[in-house]
Amino acid sequence: MSAIPILRLGHVLLVNVNVELDDEIATRMQNDVLLAIERWEAEGLVIDISGLEVVDSYVARILAETGQMTKLMGTRCVVCGMRPEVAATLTRMGYPMSGVMTALNLADGLSLLGYKLERV
Amino acid sequence: MSAIPILRLGHVLLVNVNVELDDEIATRMQNDVLLAIERWEAEGLVIDISGLEVVDSYVARILAETGQMTKLMGTRCVVCGMRPEVAATLTRMGYPMSGVMTALNLADGLSLLGYKLERV
Repeated sequence: MSAIPILRLGHVLLVNVNVELDDEIATRMQNDVLLAIERWEAEGLVIDISGLEVVDSYVARILAETGQMTKLMGTRCVVCGMRPEVAATLTRMGYPMSGVMTALNLADGLSLLGYKLERV
Repeated sequence: MSAIPILRLGHVLLVNVNVELDDEIATRMQNDVLLAIERWEAEGLVIDISGLEVVDSYVARILAETGQMTKLMGTRCVVCGMRPEVAATLTRMGYPMSGVMTALNLADGLSLLGYKLERV
């Protein structure tokens, strides 16, 4: 049960990364997310990494790759909630996550995908 | 980092229970949720338990209690995604979760709280 949880909200999948990602969990998350996109025919994916205090180059690559893979599948991916220290580290490492959409928080991430939680 | 993740989406908190809840984790989840409601001034709370294959009487009581506590705080709580076998067990145990709103999935749970994810 150490898998990263994937929440389905209509046509959008929400992934909340709340454990530090080692290589194995990151790879498994990537697999699970791609299978969930296929299964639910998701139109969008938001990966919330606000729980991550550390993102090493491997995890950054997995996140960037996942964005590219979902794009190939026809879905859009946003990474949201990156902490300041993570953003600083990735930039200093020369890893600007190019090609990945990023947003401040979950609501902004959904907004980038064209969705909004509205009162009905 | 074994805490249950709490996602904030505008004025709603989403809690995704993806590990089997032992007494300690369940109690901690209750505390964390109540503090998050206060912190973010949440208007609604959805607890997704679709990841739970077993709900014992203690966990059921924590969930029911959490619903009552959030109500006292002025927020509404919906438990969603209960598996058939869990629903069957709770009913046979004579634990009907009275007073707790339940919904089939996350989207329905949000709908019960008066929210919907809309395209913008």
